[in-house]
Amino acid sequence: MALIVQKFGGTSVGDADRIRAVARRCVDTRNAGNDVVVVVSAMAGVTDRLVQLAHEISADPDPREYDVLVATGEQQTIALLAMAIQELGTPARSLTATQIRMLTDADHARARIHSIDTERLREELARGAIAVLPGFQGVTEDGDISTLGRGGSDTSAVAVAAALKADVCEIYTDVDGVLTCDPRIVPDARLIERISYDEMLEMASLGAKVLQIRSVKFGKQYGVPIHVRSAFSDREGTWVVPESEVMERLVVSGVTYNRNEAKVTIFGVADVPGIAARIFGPMSDAGLVVDVIVQNVSKDGTTDVTFTVARGDLARALEISESLAAELPARGVESDEAIAKVSVVGLGMKDHAGVAGRMFKVLANEGINIQMINTSEIKISVVLAEKYTELACRKLHAAFELGDAPVREEEA
Amino acid sequence: MALIVQKFGGTSVGDADRIRAVARRCVDTRNAGNDVVVVVSAMAGVTDRLVQLAHEISADPDPREYDVLVATGEQQTIALLAMAIQELGTPARSLTATQIRMLTDADHARARIHSIDTERLREELARGAIAVLPGFQGVTEDGDISTLGRGGSDTSAVAVAAALKADVCEIYTDVDGVLTCDPRIVPDARLIERISYDEMLEMASLGAKVLQIRSVKFGKQYGVPIHVRSAFSDREGTWVVPESEVMERLVVSGVTYNRNEAKVTIFGVADVPGIAARIFGPMSDAGLVVDVIVQNVSKDGTTDVTFTVARGDLARALEISESLAAELPARGVESDEAIAKVSVVGLGMKDHAGVAGRMFKVLANEGINIQMINTSEIKISVVLAEKYTELACRKLHAAFELGDAPVREEEA
Repeated sequence: MALIVQKFGGTSVGDADRIRAVARRCVDTRNAGNDVVVVVSAMAGVTDRLVQLAHEISADPDPREYDVLVATGEQQTIALLAMAIQELGTPARSLTATQIRMLTDADHARARIHSIDTERLREELARGAIAVLPGFQGVTEDGDISTLGRGGSDTSAVAVAAALKADVCEIYTDVDGVLTCDPRIVPDARLIERISYDEMLEMASLGAKVLQIRSVKFGKQYGVPIHVRSAFSDREGTWVVPESEVMERLVVSGVTYNRNEAKVTIFGVADVPGIAARIFGPMSDAGLVVDVIVQNVSKDGTTDVTFTVARGDLARALEISESLAAELPARGVESDEAIAKVSVVGLGMKDHAGVAGRMFKVLANEGINIQMINTSEIKISVVLAEKYTELACRKLHAAFELGDAPVREEEA
Repeated sequence: MALIVQKFGGTSVGDADRIRAVARRCVDTRNAGNDVVVVVSAMAGVTDRLVQLAHEISADPDPREYDVLVATGEQQTIALLAMAIQELGTPARSLTATQIRMLTDADHARARIHSIDTERLREELARGAIAVLPGFQGVTEDGDISTLGRGGSDTSAVAVAAALKADVCEIYTDVDGVLTCDPRIVPDARLIERISYDEMLEMASLGAKVLQIRSVKFGKQYGVPIHVRSAFSDREGTWVVPESEVMERLVVSGVTYNRNEAKVTIFGVADVPGIAARIFGPMSDAGLVVDVIVQNVSKDGTTDVTFTVARGDLARALEISESLAAELPARGVESDEAIAKVSVVGLGMKDHAGVAGRMFKVLANEGINIQMINTSEIKISVVLAEKYTELACRKLHAAFELGDAPVREEEA
């Protein structure tokens, strides 16, 4: 008898038939002797329609009211799923974020979860019911409705699993789990069976879209095993677990890419202490998330600073850069949107040198120029011209033998 | 400086443009120096779509979950309207039924309001904000979402007005107010300027659809002046007020009709004490609302009992009647759906005899047979063949001179 939290996204609950299928799965899990708590997103398309309505009313809708509006999407799904479970003869009850006191801060539209009152949930489980909860939403100390930002349902599910000390948080998705690379680019991409939180964090932040990054952080923080699996089959998917439980410490677990960034270079900046702070302080103040940063070696007392931001933030980043260039001063500002970031991720890198060299050689062999490099303990990212994305992913995937049997660290 | 509660229905908030128009009106009222609380329905069509979704999942959805689902319609509107008011530079805040503790019983889908916590509302008003509330929904003692049943938004608005001791509850609608008769049938139907709660109750329950009957009861109970007016003009509409404030006690204020009833006759029932209870007890137990009841004089120790029910309940009423006929026993059961109830309503009837006679004579002159008669202190209803509905309404409207200057009681 385990306590299982199951999370289903918008596509999995996209219409009445799919909601019925989800209900079937919840009831099967219950009938196998488990306690079940389900967390659901809004039906596919519902949130988009609500957001559109808000923007018909206001170009910049009040975040508090925005949350009151978009939270209705998940509220609809919890009621419909509870009905569908009851239709199968199993007791079920929907509970809103207000009812389970899913307390968040008041940072509307991107609130952070502080705590969850599990008493009501435990009552429902004790009477044999499946509890059905809305993802994505919370409630502030003042009783106002808040939301966690798009994709927040994964985070809700893991937070609920953490609060309940659940045995597993199952994230159902329309793919089989986490793959070694995007199968649209690399046809022989393989399912990863077990991956550590840290690897998953790198994979998620680098562009693998199966799992929301905040949910992985939560999972890591509270040690919640996360099982990413298909909503359309009973096959095991990918387990995201503590590093100690990853048996095969692969040198490279996966290859990811991100085509959603743009590059900005500020040329000829005086190479003096504090210059980075003067550039990136204003970016941060403007709410821009700067990713890769490279500063060239000094030449005649000046240097070039290059960084990447999300493409949607490029206009804003350029505006700030131009104004900085006049102020610092700098020689000029350039930008390039036609870039991609390609990364290899793997726990084994901690112990094994040579991965970067191997990666650079693979790219050099294909005549792919590396524009920027960024590394962490368990990943190496390179920025390159966008047109090389597929080629780079395919060659790296093959070079690290991800399509075949996994390369164990002993063999690397 | 008055405190005004304004209620807008689904058509008035049917899209972004209309929501903006409603916002404009709320702000104008605020800028005229009033405190404003707005109560809104779901956008036209939204509730229907949600109900359809529920029925795709379950033929008989759990009422508690049904309420969680349909309450989202109003929650969407309060957020959108608050945004639209803010766009006009006026502070506004949406508050859910949970937030204002609009406490109801747990009789889901037709809950009754017990109390409202006005503290939060008064806080918003004190800071100069327009408070935007959802009609139709409430919250139970247990914190579950409840709904008042369709059309409940009028009731919510009047209840809020009562709790706040508001100066007026304005019900905005797509007609000019309460008319002396349905203008589709009687082209010279006239706007009624003032009408008592009791007259309005008779008008509402008899088929005039401008105002939900429970809201009028609430208004009467707490002495809330209700102003029914057009959402599309600034003209005064109809004031629904205490009897003492109705200056012109008209003999007949209006003519109404109801084509949504059906007639059932149980023939040859033993005419003994307790027979009515034995017939109408089971009807009531089955949740059927029986309207007009007529029992003929006894003949050979037996009598015929005729009554009307809503057409949608006819099958169920017949089923019960057939089983009663076997049990009582009775000679047989007959039914007729092709009937209509036509009524004249007026405070002046309390003091003036002769209205019934005049009504019957008008109908007789047209060769219209009266099948059943039912009277109260301030109304006379007759059941007749449905095909005569329009003719009867037109002739009665003319006979009581409702299309011209109102007939005052002195003149009647």
